[in-house]
Amino acid sequence: MNPEEPYNGPVCPLPITRHDTVQLSHGSGGKMMDDLISKMFLWAFDNPQLNKKEDQAILQAGGQRLAFSTDSFVVDPLFFPGGDIGELAVNGTVNDVSMSGARPLFLSAAFIIEEGFSLKELERVVLSMKGAAEKAGVAIVTGDTKVVNKGKGDKIFINTAGIGLLPEGRDIGMHRIRPGDKVLISGSIADHGITILSQREGLAFESSIQSDTAALNGMIEELLQAGGADIHALRDPTRGGVAATLNEFAAASGLTVRISEERLPLKPAVGGACSFLGLDPLYVANEGKLIAVVGADKAETVLEAMRNHPLGRGSALIGDVVEEQPGQVVMRTRIGSWRIVDTLVGEQLPRIC
Amino acid sequence: MNPEEPYNGPVCPLPITRHDTVQLSHGSGGKMMDDLISKMFLWAFDNPQLNKKEDQAILQAGGQRLAFSTDSFVVDPLFFPGGDIGELAVNGTVNDVSMSGARPLFLSAAFIIEEGFSLKELERVVLSMKGAAEKAGVAIVTGDTKVVNKGKGDKIFINTAGIGLLPEGRDIGMHRIRPGDKVLISGSIADHGITILSQREGLAFESSIQSDTAALNGMIEELLQAGGADIHALRDPTRGGVAATLNEFAAASGLTVRISEERLPLKPAVGGACSFLGLDPLYVANEGKLIAVVGADKAETVLEAMRNHPLGRGSALIGDVVEEQPGQVVMRTRIGSWRIVDTLVGEQLPRIC
Repeated sequence: MNPEEPYNGPVCPLPITRHDTVQLSHGSGGKMMDDLISKMFLWAFDNPQLNKKEDQAILQAGGQRLAFSTDSFVVDPLFFPGGDIGELAVNGTVNDVSMSGARPLFLSAAFIIEEGFSLKELERVVLSMKGAAEKAGVAIVTGDTKVVNKGKGDKIFINTAGIGLLPEGRDIGMHRIRPGDKVLISGSIADHGITILSQREGLAFESSIQSDTAALNGMIEELLQAGGADIHALRDPTRGGVAATLNEFAAASGLTVRISEERLPLKPAVGGACSFLGLDPLYVANEGKLIAVVGADKAETVLEAMRNHPLGRGSALIGDVVEEQPGQVVMRTRIGSWRIVDTLVGEQLPRIC
Repeated sequence: MNPEEPYNGPVCPLPITRHDTVQLSHGSGGKMMDDLISKMFLWAFDNPQLNKKEDQAILQAGGQRLAFSTDSFVVDPLFFPGGDIGELAVNGTVNDVSMSGARPLFLSAAFIIEEGFSLKELERVVLSMKGAAEKAGVAIVTGDTKVVNKGKGDKIFINTAGIGLLPEGRDIGMHRIRPGDKVLISGSIADHGITILSQREGLAFESSIQSDTAALNGMIEELLQAGGADIHALRDPTRGGVAATLNEFAAASGLTVRISEERLPLKPAVGGACSFLGLDPLYVANEGKLIAVVGADKAETVLEAMRNHPLGRGSALIGDVVEEQPGQVVMRTRIGSWRIVDTLVGEQLPRIC
């Protein structure tokens, strides 16, 4: 495309919201991000894998089915209680690949480094990636390094892409969500987002608050052993929190996800911090939790298996899937009323991962 | 890793050069980048695929061999004669996958966008990626979008990762370079780098100067048809130019690459711009060229096949591989003398791709 020539090609269905420029909210996991993805990226790149709007693509490669996923990590600060950008970059992509039921095997790692970034801090990030990759049982097999001028980046951004093998016959995804399914979560919510935010704002909450970043592929293997084909959908509720993930489930299935506020695991310190900061924990990011939608018959067995795994001790059954209000998420509050859990247009927590 | 705790883990073999911080040269394709990659990334992530130092990893996934590669694109300016960041992002990864002899099939695309970036320009980039993907015959199947605060990025950075299928029995790589092999290039050198630089510096050279960005997978298929197992190594000479690629060949094979200055295809306008800017075209980036190391018997046949392809019209045999000065690249100059073509420590052309 020659920049001198007038542009006569196709025109995508803009405007995306009322903005002419990209806003922080376009990257926050809410409605504006969904709008940008649907109206720009899916519209342009249009293909069956992408259009599924899962966190990974399932590909047929020769005789083998693969799961393929990518994420860039721009978290600020780089180091925080419970983890750092390197761990996030490995765990995040391992999790996105694993949520399809695939076994993650290989990662790429691409670094965009700002001129002047400390080599010692780079080493710390790299060693953290090494540790996380070993723990998750994946190999970082290819990479790239770019350096941008001072002031044109922010210390370090890391992209990882991941490849996993999908065992024959395994079919996990939002298309399999059915009325009557149970909704499970693997532990307490909002830990990661509140950790990042409190670091950024210089707030000193109880030292018990730390990121939950973890690779979940090990727990998923156990859960699949226990639940087999009754595991219908898996998703890690990262940007946009539990609310965003449940809304994706409701929208994709055309069903209603009902949850109970009382059953949502929330650490008291994190809950306190949320109140203090005026945040609803349902919308705050997690990095080491998964939500599973499971056929009712196997729900208890799967919950048991999750609780037996070190990363799932705090697992809980938080709700179910019904047909009443298609495409909506509703929550029974502590006082017994029902409330609609909508997606936010855009949340004001940029650079959480 | 808890940032409060003293760090007691392994320590990588720093210092990387004499610097404490990351320099622009660490990303320029020269010795400093090689140093950073070897002493930091290969040291930490240590595995046979990565240690080969090819531009892609060859993976065994079930019964299938895959090629897997990643690149981030940070080129400045975003739009330039002959292409833009979107085209580069697709073509660059398609090429890195293809240089193994694999057929590229699937790409991921991850965007790091600076708050305030124009949605119209984003659309232009996305449409350009769409066009490039269609032309190369690959599908963009998964993606990610992050937005960073204004001043913490630079308009848009794009990462692509790519997966290709490696047909049975195909084995192309630096390990196959042998004494007596011929060295071919698919056309004129330095076009891309000079285009970017002249745009950035506001220099108005002849309008004939434009980026050579192109997907080379189609030409590689033809070349493999013609050369079969006599195609020993393929590489696209991007950052660091032809000099960097040939030095990688020499270092990996422990042999000498000999080239002839006279035979190096160089457009007069690009050569003139190089003289004006004080740059040696051997070190300037290309984005749509490949260097092939081919068994002597098949060199003429392969050259013919390359010239028959629209992207290889200007192909030339530029040299051969001998044993004399292990690990070195030497060039017979126009005046008949021999000169060592070393790698630069770091070149001062950041953000060329």
